[in-house]
Amino acid sequence: MAKTAGIIIIGNEILSGKTQDTNSYYLASELRKLGVNVRRIVVVPDDIDAIAAEVAVQSEKYDYVFTAGGVGPTHDDVTMQGIAKAFNLKTVTNQKILEVIKERCGNRLNEPTMRMAELPEGAEVIEVEGLRFPPIVLKNVFIFPGIPEFLRQKFSAIKERFRSEPFILKKIYVKEEECFIAHYLEKVTSEFPDVVVGSYPKVGVDEYKVVVTLESTSQDSLSKAYDFLIGLLPENVVVRTEGT
Amino acid sequence: MAKTAGIIIIGNEILSGKTQDTNSYYLASELRKLGVNVRRIVVVPDDIDAIAAEVAVQSEKYDYVFTAGGVGPTHDDVTMQGIAKAFNLKTVTNQKILEVIKERCGNRLNEPTMRMAELPEGAEVIEVEGLRFPPIVLKNVFIFPGIPEFLRQKFSAIKERFRSEPFILKKIYVKEEECFIAHYLEKVTSEFPDVVVGSYPKVGVDEYKVVVTLESTSQDSLSKAYDFLIGLLPENVVVRTEGT
Repeated sequence: MAKTAGIIIIGNEILSGKTQDTNSYYLASELRKLGVNVRRIVVVPDDIDAIAAEVAVQSEKYDYVFTAGGVGPTHDDVTMQGIAKAFNLKTVTNQKILEVIKERCGNRLNEPTMRMAELPEGAEVIEVEGLRFPPIVLKNVFIFPGIPEFLRQKFSAIKERFRSEPFILKKIYVKEEECFIAHYLEKVTSEFPDVVVGSYPKVGVDEYKVVVTLESTSQDSLSKAYDFLIGLLPENVVVRTEGT
Repeated sequence: MAKTAGIIIIGNEILSGKTQDTNSYYLASELRKLGVNVRRIVVVPDDIDAIAAEVAVQSEKYDYVFTAGGVGPTHDDVTMQGIAKAFNLKTVTNQKILEVIKERCGNRLNEPTMRMAELPEGAEVIEVEGLRFPPIVLKNVFIFPGIPEFLRQKFSAIKERFRSEPFILKKIYVKEEECFIAHYLEKVTSEFPDVVVGSYPKVGVDEYKVVVTLESTSQDSLSKAYDFLIGLLPENVVVRTEGT
């Protein structure tokens, strides 16, 4: 059974359209490659209660939760308080993080910056060689910064711990309108319940009109479903295929 | 008081990292320009219950809800059923949409395609000149397709109905680490409760280190908060400013 995950993006700048979130796409595609099934992505504002409510729901429901954003030194960085509140915990000063901050800021250390060392009680700092600010985890919640470069660096450093049974993917590029192949896709779906069938129309491309995806953790089911669908589709509509 | 909105993106392809969602960013930035305050963005799978649960919550909580995706002819297009379920409604055939489909497909009309005309009971088709498939609304839920080109076309056609009191934005580009200006931003936030202060560090840029944003529906408060912050910041850290 594939592991499940939820992603929580924290930040007013995403909700107000100032910044395009790229972290959820990165995490979703990386997790997919690792065989993890992302079930929900939510963008919430920099608000303790909104963060707490979503973390509580996802932590209960999924194997892993990934948060991005709201861990800096400014007044709107309230992710740690939000996550603490989700589990009715206080925040406490983490000495290891405090040392890192002191070393970084020297005699310019100030109150807001020191608050970055306040973590939910019981949060664990994941030691990674070469990373000054290490990833932080509380229960099944993995806490990342919102800055894409730092998020990627930290996620890459620990991603192997999430590896699960991989999904295998086949793509079929079809030069026919979606509405004329929908009934074939429906047949594949009912014949092969362990194969997920997707259908994605593309506008503004000459070569094909729809990309059909077949996905499964079973190579055998996938191959059978693929052969079955190819047999159903009218001649000459398949432009090309991808995947094993 | 600014109107509020929620956005629901429907599609397994987003959750599995196959496709990067661009619709939420488009909607969030367009709505912001119209003065609408987006409070939540959620990506849910092609699953009737997941859609129904999120639509029910957001429709209750916000002035407007925008959905994108899951309205095509394939087996995984279940948005209409999900929205109907959110309000305990049945779906019924909409004659206007059925006519459009018949005209489009001619004698190739089939069962899955006809299902595209099944709308939640009471859903209203918004007449827009020049759009063959018009936008659809049920209560405060505006239903859009997932294909970005079609979503943009439909949203543009009806966006004026959402126009509200606009937000005014000023940006200050600062060449100083976030942790050394955080306490100034905190002061602005407590002095000017009707001004929203944001702070966005940027990696890999030489010119500046942080973009500070000030935002308000009151030009007067915004100008005062701006002058106050400029007065607090050390000399020579402000690289440039944007906005009126």
